Amino acid sequence: MAEAEQKLANGTARIDFATDPSRYRHWKLAVDGKVATLVLDVDEKGSLFAGYDLKLNSYDLGVDIELADAFERIRFEHPQVRVVLLRSGKPRVFCAGANIRMLAGASHAHKVNFCKFTNETRNAIEDASAGSSVRTICVISGTAAGGGYELALAADHIILVDDGSSSVSLPEVPLLAVLPGTGGLTRITDKRKVRRDRADSFCTTEEGIKGKRATEWRLVDEITPPSQLEAVVAARAREFAGDAEQPPPYPPPPPTLPSPASGGGLGRGPGEGREGVGVALTPLERNVAADRRDYKYVSVAFDRAGRVATITLRGPDSPPPPSAEEMLAHGAAFWPLQVARELDDAILDIRLNELDVAAIVFKSEGDPRTVLDYDLFLDRQARHWLAREIRLKWKRVLKRIDLTSRSLVALIEPGSCFAGTLAEIVFAADRSYMLIGSRDGDNRPPARIILGGVNLSGTLAMSNGLDRLRTRFLGEPEARDNARQAIGQALDATAAEALGLVTFALDDIDWDDEIRLFLEERASFSPDSLTGLESNLRFAGPETMETKIFARLTAWQNWIFQRSNATGETGALSRYGTGRKPEFDTRRT
Amino acid sequence: MAEAEQKLANGTARIDFATDPSRYRHWKLAVDGKVATLVLDVDEKGSLFAGYDLKLNSYDLGVDIELADAFERIRFEHPQVRVVLLRSGKPRVFCAGANIRMLAGASHAHKVNFCKFTNETRNAIEDASAGSSVRTICVISGTAAGGGYELALAADHIILVDDGSSSVSLPEVPLLAVLPGTGGLTRITDKRKVRRDRADSFCTTEEGIKGKRATEWRLVDEITPPSQLEAVVAARAREFAGDAEQPPPYPPPPPTLPSPASGGGLGRGPGEGREGVGVALTPLERNVAADRRDYKYVSVAFDRAGRVATITLRGPDSPPPPSAEEMLAHGAAFWPLQVARELDDAILDIRLNELDVAAIVFKSEGDPRTVLDYDLFLDRQARHWLAREIRLKWKRVLKRIDLTSRSLVALIEPGSCFAGTLAEIVFAADRSYMLIGSRDGDNRPPARIILGGVNLSGTLAMSNGLDRLRTRFLGEPEARDNARQAIGQALDATAAEALGLVTFALDDIDWDDEIRLFLEERASFSPDSLTGLESNLRFAGPETMETKIFARLTAWQNWIFQRSNATGETGALSRYGTGRKPEFDTRRT
Repeated sequence: MAEAEQKLANGTARIDFATDPSRYRHWKLAVDGKVATLVLDVDEKGSLFAGYDLKLNSYDLGVDIELADAFERIRFEHPQVRVVLLRSGKPRVFCAGANIRMLAGASHAHKVNFCKFTNETRNAIEDASAGSSVRTICVISGTAAGGGYELALAADHIILVDDGSSSVSLPEVPLLAVLPGTGGLTRITDKRKVRRDRADSFCTTEEGIKGKRATEWRLVDEITPPSQLEAVVAARAREFAGDAEQPPPYPPPPPTLPSPASGGGLGRGPGEGREGVGVALTPLERNVAADRRDYKYVSVAFDRAGRVATITLRGPDSPPPPSAEEMLAHGAAFWPLQVARELDDAILDIRLNELDVAAIVFKSEGDPRTVLDYDLFLDRQARHWLAREIRLKWKRVLKRIDLTSRSLVALIEPGSCFAGTLAEIVFAADRSYMLIGSRDGDNRPPARIILGGVNLSGTLAMSNGLDRLRTRFLGEPEARDNARQAIGQALDATAAEALGLVTFALDDIDWDDEIRLFLEERASFSPDSLTGLESNLRFAGPETMETKIFARLTAWQNWIFQRSNATGETGALSRYGTGRKPEFDTRRT
Repeated sequence: MAEAEQKLANGTARIDFATDPSRYRHWKLAVDGKVATLVLDVDEKGSLFAGYDLKLNSYDLGVDIELADAFERIRFEHPQVRVVLLRSGKPRVFCAGANIRMLAGASHAHKVNFCKFTNETRNAIEDASAGSSVRTICVISGTAAGGGYELALAADHIILVDDGSSSVSLPEVPLLAVLPGTGGLTRITDKRKVRRDRADSFCTTEEGIKGKRATEWRLVDEITPPSQLEAVVAARAREFAGDAEQPPPYPPPPPTLPSPASGGGLGRGPGEGREGVGVALTPLERNVAADRRDYKYVSVAFDRAGRVATITLRGPDSPPPPSAEEMLAHGAAFWPLQVARELDDAILDIRLNELDVAAIVFKSEGDPRTVLDYDLFLDRQARHWLAREIRLKWKRVLKRIDLTSRSLVALIEPGSCFAGTLAEIVFAADRSYMLIGSRDGDNRPPARIILGGVNLSGTLAMSNGLDRLRTRFLGEPEARDNARQAIGQALDATAAEALGLVTFALDDIDWDDEIRLFLEERASFSPDSLTGLESNLRFAGPETMETKIFARLTAWQNWIFQRSNATGETGALSRYGTGRKPEFDTRRT
C-alpha cells in the first residue's frame, strides 16, 4: 500500500527547514520598536511540492516553516519586541487554511507530520506569550477559514473587521469530511471556552460566523468597523506592549543560587528593552552525505538497512563564559543555543525526510561536568533574556522529541556527557541502556549521568506540564526525592539503575547483543502500533490543552485521514474541487 | 468500501444485550454472603458470531455482555456483596483477551463499538468500587494475556500465582500490530503508575512477565505460591470486605435538604447488610417492530430513510412512593430504575445494531414536576443503598450517551418533562431546540425545563469528572450561578435560552423546517468527521483516566485498526494464525 510521495517543487530530495527572512516567499516580517508585524502574503506559485497552487493565502509546510522561523527570529534577534501583529497581505482573505490540493495529494505520513509541525508552530506562538511575554494580536480582515482561523486561535487577541463579509469559520467537517487538525477544536472548547452546542453549530456552518455573533460566542475578542481598524490595532498594540513589559525570569532562580552576576532592570531581562541587542540566528552549517548529516555539535548517522538513525550530541569545547556579555558575544555559536538548533533541525529532518527510520538512537560525547557548568551558568543568568530564550528553546526541542513518532533509545556509554539538560534526552527516550564499567582498550571515563537542578525544576516540562522525572516517577514520589538528593553526583550505571534513571545497566559482554536485538525487534514491529504505544506510554499523568491537541484531536484526525470517506476514491478530500459530490459509507463508527 | 457484517451465531438479526445468570454460557456467578465469585469459563462453541471458536477463555462481545450483566446484578440483586473474586474456570489460562479470529473478521464499526462496550464494562467495575464499595480481586492462575490482563487491571487488587508459568502480558504490539484497546496502556501508566520504560519493555515482550518482577514493576499487587493461593484469596477477601464495609452515601445529601426519611445504620445504607433484600432485575419487556422498539417508559422510532432514531422517554405514571420500603417493593418497576435500564438497552441497540443511524433525537412526555419529585425522593434517600445504586446507574447510562458516536439532539416540546435527571439528556446533546409557546390545537402545556439540585451537584458527572452544566459553562461561571438560582423554576423556551440551557428557542413557524434541515444536514456529512468532531466538542475541560482511555488510547487504536499493517491483506490481524508472517509498510507516521 505504498503511496507515492509528492515531488518537491524545487527539485531537491529533502524538505529543508532552514530559512531566513531574506528568503521568505510567503511572509513579510517588519520590526518597529516593540511591535513586529508578520504579514501573510502567500506566493501562489511558491508551493513546497509540485502540483498545486497556494491560492487564497492557503498554506503548505513550506509556508509554515517560514512562520516558525519568523517567531524564532523575533525572540532571539529582536528581544525588545512585545507584540506581534499577524495580518494578511491580501484583500478579502486572511487565510484559507491548509491547501486542499496539497492534502489530497499528500501521503498519509506527510499529512500527519505536516499537522504535527503546524501544531508545534502554533504552540510556539503561545509559548512566546507565556514564556517571553511576546503577545500576538491577530487582525482578520476578510475570511479566516479552517487552518486560517486556527492560526488566529493561537494568538492572545483576535480582532475581526465588521464589514458584513469578514468571517471566521471551521468548515472542515461540512466541506472536506476531515477535522480542523491544528488545534482548532481544542482551542475553541478549552482556550476560548465556547459553549459546546455553539461550537457544534459553528463547526458545521460552512460559511462561518461574522460580526457581533462572533464576539457573543467568544470566537473573536472584538469587532471593529473598517474605518476604525487601524486605530484599534494601534491602540491594542500599545496596550499589549504595556501589559507585556516584564517577561518572567526563566527559570525562577532557586533561593540557594547566587544572585545574577550581571544585573538588569527590575523584572526586565538585561538588554531586553534595547533594539539591536539580539542574537542573529546565523545559518547552521551542515555537511550532508548519503548516510550522514554533520553539524558542529550534532551528527546523524543513518543505518538504512537497520532502519536506525543515530544522533550523537557533542558537549561544549570550553567552559561557559564568565559573563552574560560574553554569552551575547558568542551569539548563535553559544554552545547551548547552537546544539539546540542543530538537534531541532536533525529531528525535523528525520521526521519528514526519513520515514523509514524506526528508531532514533541518542548518544553523546564530552565532559558531563562542563555540560552541567553551562546549566549552572544559565541558572545564574535566569533573568537575562538570552538565557531565558535558550531554556525555552530547549523546552520546545525536547517536546519535539517527545512528540516524534519513532522509537527513542538513549545509549549511555563511556565518554558520554548526559548531564543536566542533556540528561533530559535520556528521560525522553522510550528506553535507555547504560554500560557498566569500561570496554577493553577504551581509556575514556566510564559512563556517568549527572543530574542538575534543571531536571527537577519544571524548567523543561513536557507538554503534560510535568517535568520528565516527575512523569517517570508518578508512582514512586520517593524516587524523585532520591534523584534530588543525587543532584551533582556522577552516577555510574549501577547507581543510575538503582535510582530508576535508566532502564537497563548492562556490562560489556551483553551490550552489543542486547542493543542489536532491541533495535531489530523494534524494526520488526508494525510502525503504526509502535506509534500508538509510544504516544500512550510517554504521557502519563495530567492532560493539558497541548496534550489534548496532540492526543485526542490529532489521533481522531489521523483516523479520519485514513478513512475512505476522506481519502478514498469517492471521499471528500479526493473529490474536492472536481465538481463531484463525495460518496460516503454512511455507517457511524 | 462496505465491509460484510458477520452473521450472528444464533441466527437472529440483532445483538441482544439482555441476559441473566440462568442463560450465561461463559460466566458463573456465585454469591456467598459478602463475597461474590465470578468464574470465567468460556464455552468455546458459544461465540456471538459464526465462524470462530472462543478458545483459551478468549472473549467476544457476547462474553462481555454477560460480565456487564453480572456486575449489574451484584449491585442490585445482592447489595450485601462487598467483594467480587474474578477467577478462571480453566486450568493454565486466566483469559487470552479478545478473540483474534473475531477481530480479524469483524467490521471496523463492530471492532470500535466492541472495544467501547468492553471499556464501559471495565469502568463499571471501577465504578462499583468507588461508588458502592464493591471491591474486585482478580486471581490469576495461568496466563492473563492482552484483554485478559486488561480485565485484571480493572480490579482493585491482582493476585498472581507464582508457579513459574502464570504470567501477565500485553502482547498486542508484537503479536497483532494493534494496541491493547481496553484501557490497558492507560491503566498501567495512570492507575498502576508503572514507569514508562518498564511499560515499554512489558508491552513489547510477547511472553509477558511473571513472578517477582511482576510485583516489582507493580503489574500485579502480590504473588503467591500455588499451595497458599486459596488461603491468600480467602484472607484478602476478608480484608477487602472489611475495608468496604461502608459504602458512601450517594449523593451526599446537601445540607438544605431534610434528613433522610427512613434511617439506616451508621454509614451503611438501609438493608445493605442483609442477604436477600436486593431488587431482582426482571427482564425488560420490549415490543419490537420493523421500525419501532417499545419499552414501558421508552420508545424508539426509526426513520431509516432519514437515518434518524427518535427516543421518547415517558415520565412516571404516579408520584414517588412515600417511603424507601415502598421503593423497594416496586423493585425493578420503580420508575427511575426502569427508565434507566430501558434507555441503556435502547442506546446499546442503536450503537451495535443500527449503524446507519446518523442522529438520535431525544424527546420526552410527562409531567416535569413529577420527574423532579422522584429526584427529590432520591436525594432524601441518599443513604439508602437502592437510591444510591439508581443514581449511579443513571450516571453510567448518561456517560454511555456522551460516548455514543451519533449526533445527539434534544427536542423540547409542549408536554415534555425534561426536568432534573431527564434534563441531563438535554445537556448531553450536541444541540437542543426548544419550542416557544404552543402549537395550534395542542392543549398540552408549553415546553418547560426544570433544573434540580442533581444537575449541579456533580452526582451525574461526565467521564471528565465535571457535571454537564459545569462543562457547558466552563467559560461563563456566572451562567452556572444563574442556573443554580433557577433550580425548581419552570423555565420556558425564552428563559431557558437566555440562561444558556438550550441551543435555540424557536417558534412554531420555524420549528419544522429548522429541525428537518438540521437532521438532513447531519445525515449528509461524513459519519467519520462527525464522530471526531463530537468526540472533541463534548469533553471540554480536564481529562481523567476514563477520558484518556476513550480519547487518547481508543482514538489511536481506531486509527491502527484501520491501517493496512493491521487489517490489510498482509496485515498482522489478517494473517494471524495462518502461519504466514505479516508484511508491513515500514514508514513511521
